Amino acid sequence: MVGAGQLAQMTQQAAIALDIELRVLALDPADPAVLAGATPSLGAPDSLDTLREFASGVDVLTFDHEQVDPELLAALEREGVNMQPSAAAHLFAQDKLHARSELARMGFPVPPFTHAHTPEEAADFAKAHGWPLIAKTARGGYDGRGVFPLADAAQAAAELATHADGLLLEPMLEIRRELAVLVARSPADERAAYPVVESVQRDAMCREILAPAPIPTELADTATELALEIVQRTGVTGIAALELFDTPDGLLVNELALRPHNSGHYTIEGAVTSQFEQHLRAVLGWPLGATTLTAPAVVMVNIVGNADGGDPRASLPAALAVPNARFHLYAKSARPGRKLGHVTVRGADLDTARAKAVHAAELIGSDL
Amino acid sequence: MVGAGQLAQMTQQAAIALDIELRVLALDPADPAVLAGATPSLGAPDSLDTLREFASGVDVLTFDHEQVDPELLAALEREGVNMQPSAAAHLFAQDKLHARSELARMGFPVPPFTHAHTPEEAADFAKAHGWPLIAKTARGGYDGRGVFPLADAAQAAAELATHADGLLLEPMLEIRRELAVLVARSPADERAAYPVVESVQRDAMCREILAPAPIPTELADTATELALEIVQRTGVTGIAALELFDTPDGLLVNELALRPHNSGHYTIEGAVTSQFEQHLRAVLGWPLGATTLTAPAVVMVNIVGNADGGDPRASLPAALAVPNARFHLYAKSARPGRKLGHVTVRGADLDTARAKAVHAAELIGSDL
Repeated sequence: MVGAGQLAQMTQQAAIALDIELRVLALDPADPAVLAGATPSLGAPDSLDTLREFASGVDVLTFDHEQVDPELLAALEREGVNMQPSAAAHLFAQDKLHARSELARMGFPVPPFTHAHTPEEAADFAKAHGWPLIAKTARGGYDGRGVFPLADAAQAAAELATHADGLLLEPMLEIRRELAVLVARSPADERAAYPVVESVQRDAMCREILAPAPIPTELADTATELALEIVQRTGVTGIAALELFDTPDGLLVNELALRPHNSGHYTIEGAVTSQFEQHLRAVLGWPLGATTLTAPAVVMVNIVGNADGGDPRASLPAALAVPNARFHLYAKSARPGRKLGHVTVRGADLDTARAKAVHAAELIGSDL
Repeated sequence: MVGAGQLAQMTQQAAIALDIELRVLALDPADPAVLAGATPSLGAPDSLDTLREFASGVDVLTFDHEQVDPELLAALEREGVNMQPSAAAHLFAQDKLHARSELARMGFPVPPFTHAHTPEEAADFAKAHGWPLIAKTARGGYDGRGVFPLADAAQAAAELATHADGLLLEPMLEIRRELAVLVARSPADERAAYPVVESVQRDAMCREILAPAPIPTELADTATELALEIVQRTGVTGIAALELFDTPDGLLVNELALRPHNSGHYTIEGAVTSQFEQHLRAVLGWPLGATTLTAPAVVMVNIVGNADGGDPRASLPAALAVPNARFHLYAKSARPGRKLGHVTVRGADLDTARAKAVHAAELIGSDL
């Protein structure tokens, strides 16, 4: 696994049970996955030599992030590395413009968009959709970075002047809810979808996940079919998370993440097979596990670094007193706004589970 | 944790989520807990120097087995090591004669027993209870080792001649079922009991665990009260497993194990808090977690090395096809009769869950 953050850390926990040796390409020996016992190779995934050497020791190469240069991935693949997902599939998570254009071309519902290079192109798009617009850089965004509003033509012109590759523009959508569908796909095209969840966002960061999403069955079915079809058409393997906007115009595809995803952390306790084990099964070509929930309702709340810099580790013993709360800490140093862990609560209904999970996150000192 | 076998391995998995650094005193760098990322110190727990050095680096010393010499534990404790459970409590798991005598003295129901040194003492006991008798060595037994039947006076005389410390004798009991109650107790006497389970034994080894045990509620309540009282009276801390015989004369205490226990492996998926996390919470003096089951029925089946020496790791991909089966492999080399892993299935009822779990164990090549 390229990367050794919390996604690799939780993958390592799943790897232990299946007696899989998880090797990670880590930047730092104190990265979460290394502390959790994954076998580290130290190095940055920005050189072909480093990646090639790491890949030479593994059965299958996979990723805990989508930041590796697509050219490097393509080069590795040409050299015969078993890479899951493939370089071509990766591009759907790496390049918003590529993803948007290709998914539109395939006929999937996406928000209206344009790729603007000039103030005139931005103004034309605003004529049809109105200001403000949302601007996104094609690459490098994560947790709201690389996404910002453009209030008017002047701001659009200013931003375009500093973005030589242009900007992906879309209207300010009327979003009822953000939904996510976690899907696994193996190289032999076995596919398994988890129940659709609602992602509650604040400051452009996922804060809570409600599983299952409190939406009509038909809407959930549509979202699931969409996700199952998209991973097949794009050739994705491993775990993928499809982020959807529920709008008055129906479901619109926002983004596709190609790795274990924050919207799937609840599956550790909340589903029969965790997304981390499922990712391992999928990239290894093993049978996929059951994706059913283990309770009527499961809520996950992220533990986010507080403005006062308090460390959740210090508050853990007190927070453990919340009945049924399941804590996961990422062994990362506390920093305001940083995801430091999460807490999951199963329950008979979403309201009860959510109240307990939020309370547990409060007690551990999370920014809420 | 002294010891680095599968109990320490699964404790390490729980430690990762709570960002606890688990250090283990391991005999071998390839011990399961070390492969799972616990921080190893290499050494045998049979010297005070080794134990002292290991203990000097930890907040609390605990154990994945009960084989450390009681004298060494007592010496460490006198030196001020925070040991959970204490040396005195340990003796209840280390010395069957001590446990039997003390529990009887405290008024808990135990099988009839005697500590025989001579053929005459054995014959006297047989006069009251009939041949055959069951003989146990006071110390060193595990998974049926150190336990054997005595068919008649001649065999009793022969065995006593080779056991200078005498033998613990008990009648061949009429056992309806073997039950186990997992209880956690913190140093501040917070206690939490898991539901009573049935332990299905073959060749004196636990093969299956049925949770909850299919017994009347009153019997389960009696067993639970017994376990909660015993851990308090004996001063046990951490996780303890009380093994009980259900007999025509009522419940009789068989043994007390003072560590995460095979009868509690099902709690990883089958209870809100796994026994491994619960053990960590208890020995650290943190609040205990909820012990409720996560499904109406949970069945665990041990994966035991087959006579043909086949390695479950090779059969894992095929076995993963069983819906809902959760596999745990211990990263141990295959050997006939050795516990190499376990599989857990949750279900709506015991029969369905058990059939799936046994099928999964068959597919992975377990001796059944």
